[in-house]
Amino acid sequence: MPRNDRRPSRPRSDKSDTFKPGPKSGAKSGPRPQGQRPAPRRPERGEGGLWLYGAHAVKAALENPRRKVKRLLVTSRSAEEIGAKLLGRVRYETVDMDTVGRMLPPGAVHQGIALLCEPLPRRDLAEVLTPSERRRIVLVLDQISDPHNAGAILRTAAAFGVSAVVVQDRNSVPESGALAKAASGALDIVPIISVVNISRSLEELQKLGFWRIALAGDGESPLKDAIADNGDIALVLGSEGSGIRRLVREHCDAAAYVPMDSVMESLNVSNAAAIALYELRRD
Amino acid sequence: MPRNDRRPSRPRSDKSDTFKPGPKSGAKSGPRPQGQRPAPRRPERGEGGLWLYGAHAVKAALENPRRKVKRLLVTSRSAEEIGAKLLGRVRYETVDMDTVGRMLPPGAVHQGIALLCEPLPRRDLAEVLTPSERRRIVLVLDQISDPHNAGAILRTAAAFGVSAVVVQDRNSVPESGALAKAASGALDIVPIISVVNISRSLEELQKLGFWRIALAGDGESPLKDAIADNGDIALVLGSEGSGIRRLVREHCDAAAYVPMDSVMESLNVSNAAAIALYELRRD
Repeated sequence: MPRNDRRPSRPRSDKSDTFKPGPKSGAKSGPRPQGQRPAPRRPERGEGGLWLYGAHAVKAALENPRRKVKRLLVTSRSAEEIGAKLLGRVRYETVDMDTVGRMLPPGAVHQGIALLCEPLPRRDLAEVLTPSERRRIVLVLDQISDPHNAGAILRTAAAFGVSAVVVQDRNSVPESGALAKAASGALDIVPIISVVNISRSLEELQKLGFWRIALAGDGESPLKDAIADNGDIALVLGSEGSGIRRLVREHCDAAAYVPMDSVMESLNVSNAAAIALYELRRD
Repeated sequence: MPRNDRRPSRPRSDKSDTFKPGPKSGAKSGPRPQGQRPAPRRPERGEGGLWLYGAHAVKAALENPRRKVKRLLVTSRSAEEIGAKLLGRVRYETVDMDTVGRMLPPGAVHQGIALLCEPLPRRDLAEVLTPSERRRIVLVLDQISDPHNAGAILRTAAAFGVSAVVVQDRNSVPESGALAKAASGALDIVPIISVVNISRSLEELQKLGFWRIALAGDGESPLKDAIADNGDIALVLGSEGSGIRRLVREHCDAAAYVPMDSVMESLNVSNAAAIALYELRRD
């Protein structure tokens, strides 16, 4: 989930072979009468950005003051779903389902809603770690690259009030429509901190008073014993293939595991994250 | 995940347009010297079945005495991964990565391993519910159709010693390579009971002494309070879109929720299942 507000805007290269701009008159903003559907436009040169889709992802993006939105495509039915209040904040076009689908990767479950927007601006850990009455939790994702897993982790992180999710610029899943869809809105709720060096972030978290726990099948204690007091926790998760990298793990204060039957080697990483976050918030 | 041992075998229809049988001599069984790679064969008429792929899924299938295997394709490197013991049990062909890939849907992460086999034979609840020293858990999946979610649920179910997963014949995800891959072997570990009518299975579970809990955001108590004693539990999960159907929910004894922040409406269904199973097995 690296994000970079200095990245130059560009059209989606995988679609450029079939780039077919519609008439300019089709891009007018604001409500339009039903039946008067504008011809769809492919993103044009200079109209780069990120397409988000699906009701939850797009509504959360529209509600996020940090999210710069550029174009919203909705069907007349999905416009009701989004509601007049959110629609009033943005230029939008009423189109049909096929037009929405043509903007997106094949198979995208868009529910008649697509939003062209900018990737989120970068933020720092220190900026997002505000004081809290309950334990603060930071998730650190070491090389988790599957958008379904990363999205589900973001969704659950938002559900359990995680303060920030730290990812590495390289080797992690980029901000994308698939990630946002799997996150079901959480991409615009949980602050994502994209860093060059995860170990350095773990040093920073230590200075901020966080107890750093690596979640690993070969950890030395069950997670619930590793979090006995109520202090702030940084929870580190590794990729399913190769786990947490050695240097990253060396920057943790403890390694803990989720107790389970030996018949399985491991859990899906988003399921492991969900269990850990649940345990961290359990009364 | 419906399975049906009475279903006639048939070749994969989505590939039949490009059906190109190789020379018959390419289908010899057993170890063959490296470098002497047989021409790949598409499944032929009468050679129907299910292609599983990936190390964990295929190893679990080979270890499952109920799984009828037909052909195993491995690269020389992945043969080592499977090991001589399992390879000794089955006819196999040493091929290259591309040959494995051509048997599978585009993008399948197969790790050089593909197994053609029969869908698992049907089983009954009564057959698989053996006595246990700890609480028995049955998962009931109401219309969960995404193979990634269903697969992750199976994987976590195996990790937490679930006795059986009940699914409906129709409206649920079919046994497939994608499901088996996401389940990481659990498809051949957890008994899956495919039924015509989920409500009837819930009646059967009641007679067997199971306490039936619907997991739902609007449940009346937190899950941990709903499972206070140590009795057997049937846990019912609904699809993310429409939740548990009314009639199914009416066949439950209680509805419970996972406590979470109101900023999110719900969790990914496999994450919710993971949390619930963890809570059910928590000391």
